[in-house]
This record gives sequence, structure tokens and C-alpha cells, in this order.
Amino acid sequence: MRLLLMLLMCALSLTAHAQGSQPVSSTSAPDHFGFGAEMMTLKNGLQVVVIPNHRVPVVTHMVWYKVGGADEAMGQSGSAHYLEHLMFKGTQTQAPGEFSKMVKTLGGNDNAFTGHDYTAYFQSISAEHLEKLMAMEADRMTGLSPPESHFESEKKVVIEERRQRTDNDPRNVFGEQMHSALFVNHPYGRPIIGWMDEMNRYQWPDIKKFYDTWYAPNNAVVVISGDVTLDSIRDMVKRTYGAVPSKSVPMRTRPTVPPANGMTSLTLRDKSVEQPSVEMLMIAPSFRQNKKEALALQLLENIMDGGAATRLYKNLVVDQKKAVTINFGYQGMAYDYGFLSLSATPAEGVALDDLVQLLQNQFRQVISSGITQQELDEAVSRLQDSAIFARDSVAGPAMLFGQALTTGSSVADLENWHRDIEKITTDDIIHVARIYANPDQFYIRPPVIGYLLPLEETPEKTP
Amino acid sequence: MRLLLMLLMCALSLTAHAQGSQPVSSTSAPDHFGFGAEMMTLKNGLQVVVIPNHRVPVVTHMVWYKVGGADEAMGQSGSAHYLEHLMFKGTQTQAPGEFSKMVKTLGGNDNAFTGHDYTAYFQSISAEHLEKLMAMEADRMTGLSPPESHFESEKKVVIEERRQRTDNDPRNVFGEQMHSALFVNHPYGRPIIGWMDEMNRYQWPDIKKFYDTWYAPNNAVVVISGDVTLDSIRDMVKRTYGAVPSKSVPMRTRPTVPPANGMTSLTLRDKSVEQPSVEMLMIAPSFRQNKKEALALQLLENIMDGGAATRLYKNLVVDQKKAVTINFGYQGMAYDYGFLSLSATPAEGVALDDLVQLLQNQFRQVISSGITQQELDEAVSRLQDSAIFARDSVAGPAMLFGQALTTGSSVADLENWHRDIEKITTDDIIHVARIYANPDQFYIRPPVIGYLLPLEETPEKTP
Repeated sequence: MRLLLMLLMCALSLTAHAQGSQPVSSTSAPDHFGFGAEMMTLKNGLQVVVIPNHRVPVVTHMVWYKVGGADEAMGQSGSAHYLEHLMFKGTQTQAPGEFSKMVKTLGGNDNAFTGHDYTAYFQSISAEHLEKLMAMEADRMTGLSPPESHFESEKKVVIEERRQRTDNDPRNVFGEQMHSALFVNHPYGRPIIGWMDEMNRYQWPDIKKFYDTWYAPNNAVVVISGDVTLDSIRDMVKRTYGAVPSKSVPMRTRPTVPPANGMTSLTLRDKSVEQPSVEMLMIAPSFRQNKKEALALQLLENIMDGGAATRLYKNLVVDQKKAVTINFGYQGMAYDYGFLSLSATPAEGVALDDLVQLLQNQFRQVISSGITQQELDEAVSRLQDSAIFARDSVAGPAMLFGQALTTGSSVADLENWHRDIEKITTDDIIHVARIYANPDQFYIRPPVIGYLLPLEETPEKTP
Repeated sequence: MRLLLMLLMCALSLTAHAQGSQPVSSTSAPDHFGFGAEMMTLKNGLQVVVIPNHRVPVVTHMVWYKVGGADEAMGQSGSAHYLEHLMFKGTQTQAPGEFSKMVKTLGGNDNAFTGHDYTAYFQSISAEHLEKLMAMEADRMTGLSPPESHFESEKKVVIEERRQRTDNDPRNVFGEQMHSALFVNHPYGRPIIGWMDEMNRYQWPDIKKFYDTWYAPNNAVVVISGDVTLDSIRDMVKRTYGAVPSKSVPMRTRPTVPPANGMTSLTLRDKSVEQPSVEMLMIAPSFRQNKKEALALQLLENIMDGGAATRLYKNLVVDQKKAVTINFGYQGMAYDYGFLSLSATPAEGVALDDLVQLLQNQFRQVISSGITQQELDEAVSRLQDSAIFARDSVAGPAMLFGQALTTGSSVADLENWHRDIEKITTDDIIHVARIYANPDQFYIRPPVIGYLLPLEETPEKTP
């Protein structure tokens, strides 16, 4: 749930790291689990998912394109995100800004966000206005034509966005450099917002080519959650989206992260950092790459860092008082690789490298001594509870389905998640800990270890 | 000269690091300096350079294409080099292997090599057979069609080449990982030989597309040195190469290395490493990016590491006995960025990080106290002497011109090098040291610092 909320916040703030920021956390099975999602595919290839929720008379309407920052040409980083901004700057039939103005007039609100593997546009609105929205979204699926003045002024907007959110925040600069050190030879290593030098050189013909290549009904998923049923919207979907012709869209390709045996570390000092912290980043499989292992990693995450009573926090923060904060996260909702991240802030007087050892020992412990069935059962319960909670919102499930369907998972994967996660055993969890979170072995490349430090601080020894 | 010899050795061994391994080291001015190069451009755009040298009755004939590893699509690393291999596997009129067999029959020898910015094919042969060679080279400029069996077997050859030269040698693995850590978001960060996983997936349609896109007379330079003049070969060039039609070739593009302020270090331990060593890699301008600074960097290189009597060796190896070997090199012959590399092996009992400090202090010394006019004069003389020596070979000048013309330098740049390098002042050298080799400031990104260690060795503190 923590993660789902994070994703929703990311979405609303157009974050540069929406990608992979959210594992599947929904469920299926009896009444209180499944989403009851309904699905159809139009003749032009558009996938439509409806998630009925009749508690409130509103809907969340989202269009997800199966394209994102990882699909950009080298040298054009951030253009998927920049295109997302330009999508609000007019088509052959809509004036610049008209889209959002109309949504507001209809009493709704709208926004959009970009990930490495998807770009999504969404509105929350009263159900009666749904067809109007669909017509407008269908229109900008093919007819984008921002005036040149808007093209240039919006370039300044995204550049300013980068300056504010990344360059002015050393934690984000650090995160960006950590990811680029881990994802060598891979677009997941570049920021979704783009590298500044490349943002300064955006040209409309390149962006237009990207749009023409990837924006098509057969490369999109429409997700509607709220006070609707598939039957109630079927005809309007056909009247609006159904009129957009399909076209040939290339296969998404992702290069391979080359194996390496050298240990990379990154040290960033900044005057605005007050407390030193350390982070380790490791490559791990995504749901699409290995669903069973992804489920086990989701549980490993929760067993290690599922609240104050779980291993990392309880042992190192509460009992041993070696750390002030610890985060261990698994991001598996990606079309290509997922990753694990382990970070911590030491308690007063604890050396960073000693803390690294202590953190690693927690994983060595899991690998050598295993986990208890009770720990596993509790983690399953916590995840299922979060999922039920998440299911009750209107936007949450729509986010989940959009992200799943654009990163290679299916409606069934989400509907069955509750049953699937119960099948994971303690051995499965030890197995993924041994392969992907093992301090004494590595998968593809050793972890990238990063130190974010105040100006005067020096790590004792590294690595 | 050391560098020129290195380049020639690289060439003959199809090295994965031909790129940038050679600064301009030739001269112009009076008799004993200039190359007396003659140049023409055919109607189809082919550039032809002739460097007469009548001391021996042989010629070196080279075709240089303005395309290399840095022009590959992401995910297809090594395909420029693989294509270079396939160029010997037959055309519509030549059987696989016939090219080299014919060269041998004519008493010559041939080979080829690939860099990040160029791909070159060369033969050394008696001048009388030149037209035959040209006809064969012109033929494979458009008609490549290797049989499928050769495509597959040659894939095994390049994969084995990678295994032998890179994967079995920790120094090369280390170099590869150092470059990929420095050249973030840039194709200079990937190995020319290719990443193994991507090599395993080569498909003929992709390679063919690369060939069709880039191999054209208007994207090539023919360099002939030896017992010929432009007049003596003009007609045969027209009869052979002149018949190949020109075509539209894309502009070469290179992405930008994004600025970063985090300090990256790489530690590689391997059982076959006997002595620990340390290396620092820094981005610096190439000749094409800034000719004056490139000349100053060439001199800085020579002042710091131009023999046993120059700063690094004399101070740290001979006088202080802190290091066993030291190398400082500048590689500026690139279409995009150049780089500086500083590496050393400590003397018995000297900690690696202490050696790093001592090395850096040598540069701090230059920046704060400058260099003497005598040091500069001696470096200019040494470089000019090497250039004269290099000029006297047959293959050397051809290499130099090919590399220069495919990385954005001109014939005039080489012919005037002797005069240009004499114009560099001690202030110019301090300036480039301060910007590009300054331990307390950095250009674009901090240096990547790498530790290559025996299995049991641990660096004292890093970074």
C-alpha cells in the first residue's frame, strides 16, 4: 500500500521515476479479493479494461501507451516525457490547453505521467462525461500538432521541471547517477525526464516521429475504473476510439545489461546533505521476466522491510540501534529488468561501511538460516490487506492494470495474484535472496554501492 | 612513436580498442617535416589521399569508412566489427575468402580493423598490383553477400575473439568496465568488439542494413602511401572506385555524456592479477572538438610521461621509488570526446591510495607552479622527432591520415601539425592541466578511479 500510494503520488507529480516504482499488489479469489475486471479488444487492436466500482458516481479514465523513456533513440532522452507534455498543446481540432480546460469545465481533473515503459494520460470525472473525454483522447491519439511557440515554451517547462526536481535535489541527482551506474548499456540507466544537454536540443521532427511511430490504438490500453460496466461503455468506446485506424508499430526492444565483475561505487557529497546515507542497487527479474521469482521477491521485500516488526527495522533500528532509517524495496513492474534497492541512514557514531556489513548480514542470515513459515504467512497477509485496501480506491486499480498491461503482465496475473502469492514457499524466498540479494555473489553485475554524504564526511573504507 | 607503434600493432591484431589510440604525431614544414600528401575527391564523393614515399617499391593501400562501433544501434554492439569480418566473406562476384587469397597470390598481405569512429581495410603490396586491389575493394563497397553458413561461422569467430582477448584477460575486462563507467550514455562506453550477449544475437538483416546505410564512396577515404603519386593512380582510381555510385548517408550523431558530480570507482579483483594497480580515466576534448587544447594535451602528456627524464617517471619511480610503472596518456583522435588516462603500479609497500595522492600531486604541481620553457621545448622536440621517424614508414602515415580524416581532422591539420605544436605555450599547457587533469576540479564528470587487484588485496581507502 505504501508503494501504491507512492505510485499514485508519483503519477500526480509526473515524476522522473514512475518506472518500476510499484510491484503488483492486488488480489483475486472470493468476493473481497478480485477486481472483477472486464476486458475487450477493439478491431483496431485497442485493449479496453473496465474495473467496476459503484460506491461513488465518478470514474477514472486512463489511456496507457506501451512506450516510454526506454524506447527513445540514443541522444533524445526525455522525449517520451516531453511528448507527454506536448499532448496537451493542441491537435488539428483542439486548441493548445483546450484539453485540460474542457476537463475542468466538466468538473474533473486530469494529468499524465511517463515511465520507462509507458506513458499514461488520465482524468477523474463524473461518469456522464466519459464519452466526451474518450472523443478527446481519441483525437489526440493521431492528430497532435502543437504550434511552434508552444513547442518552444514547453521545452522550457520540462527543462525547468528537471532543474527543480532533479538538479536542485542531491538525493535525486544521486538516484539518477546510481541508476546510470547500474543499468550500463541500457535505457533504464537514463532518467525519464532526460539529460539536460539532450533536452536543450529537442526538435519537433524527432518528437513527431516518435509520436507517429508509437501512438496507435493497437499500442494502447484504455482503463476505466469506477461507476461503469463494460456493457455501459462498449458503444461509446467503439464510437470514439474505434474510429482511430490501427497501424504497424515496431516491437519494443531492450538491450542487455552486460555482465561485469567489477564492483562499482559512487560517492556524492553535497552541502545540503545533513546525514550520510548508503544505498545498494541490484538487478533482479521483473514480473514479465520471471513471475514466480517476482512474487517471491515481493515477499522478501515485505519480510525484510514490511513494517516496524520485520527484520531490518526490528534488528538494526530498534534492537541494535545501528540505523535510523532503512529501506529495502523491490521494483518488478517493468517490461525488462527489475531491481532491488537497499538503503539506510546510520545512527550517530556508526560508520557507513560497518552499517553496510550489518545490512548485508541480515541477508546472509536469510540465506543461511532461512525464514520461518510464520514470517511468510504474516507477509502474505500484510500484502493481501494492502491489496484489498488499494482495490477500494477508484484510481488505484486503474493504475495497477495500466502498469501491468504495459509491462507484459495480464489481467489474469492481477486477478490471480492473491492465489499465486499464497503458493510461494519459504524455500522460494531463500532462493531469490540467494540469487539476487546475496552479498557474497551477484546476478549479472555486483551491486552498485552509493554514498550520499555531507561535504565534510568521508566513508571509512569503500567498498 | 610508442603510440604510433601501438596503433600499428592494434591494427594488425584487430584490437577492440583501436579507437582513439593514437594522437596526431606527424609534422609539416620544410623538407624533412611535411608528408607531401596529395588529395582529390571523385565525383561520387570518395576522398583520395596519396602520400608518396619512393624509398621502397611497395604501397600501403587503405580504405577507411567513416563509421564504427559508435554508430551501431543500441543492442547491436560489435556489429561494425563483425561487418568488418564479413567483408572477407564474399560478394556477388567474389567467393568467400577470395579477397585475402588474391592478395596473398599477388605477394601482399591484408587485414582490417574497427574503431569507434571508423572501419579500415588495408593491404601492403607491390605497386604494380594496385589497380587489382582497388577493383576488389570497390567491389565489396556495395556487393557484400556472405553465404549464411559463413555468417554463422564468422559469428563464432568474433565471439571467440572476444573470449580470448577480453574475457580471458582481466586487464581488458577492467579497461572495458572503466570505459563504460566513464562514458555514460555514450557509445564510447561500449566495447568495439561488442557485449557478448548482443554478439550472440547478430542477425544478417541488421548487419546488412548497417552496411547499406554507411558503406558508400561518399563516406569513405582511400589512402595510398608508398611508391606512387596522385598522377600515377588517378586514372585507375576513377576506373575502379569511380564506378561506385554515391548514395545518401546519414549524419553521424553522438549523444552527450551527461554531467555528473558523483565520484565513481571500480574495483576488480582477479586471481590472475599479481600486482595491484590503479587507473584514473578523465574526459578531455578531442582534436575535432578543440584543436588547440588537443595540441596542448599532447604536450602535457609528453611533459608528464615522455620518457625516463620526465616528471612522473623521474619523480615517482626514480627519485621517490613509490611506483614501479606509471602511464599517462591522451587519446584525442576521436570524432567525439577524447580522454586522459593515468595509471600506475605501486612499489612494494606503497598503498594504492597513497600512490593516487602522489600522482595527483604531480598535476597539482603543474597547475600551481607551472612548467618550464625548457620542459616544453624538449617535449616539442621529442614529438617532432617521433613524427619524423613515423613519417619514414610506409604504413604509418597512411594510418595517420585515415584516422585523422575519419575523425574530423584534415590533411592540412596533419601537414601543419609541426608548426601548430610550436605555437603552444607553457600557459596553454597549464590551462589544459587545470581544466582536464585537475585532481580538485573536474570537466563534465569526476574521473573514474579503478583498482585492479589480486584476489587477496584490499585498497586502504576508496575513494
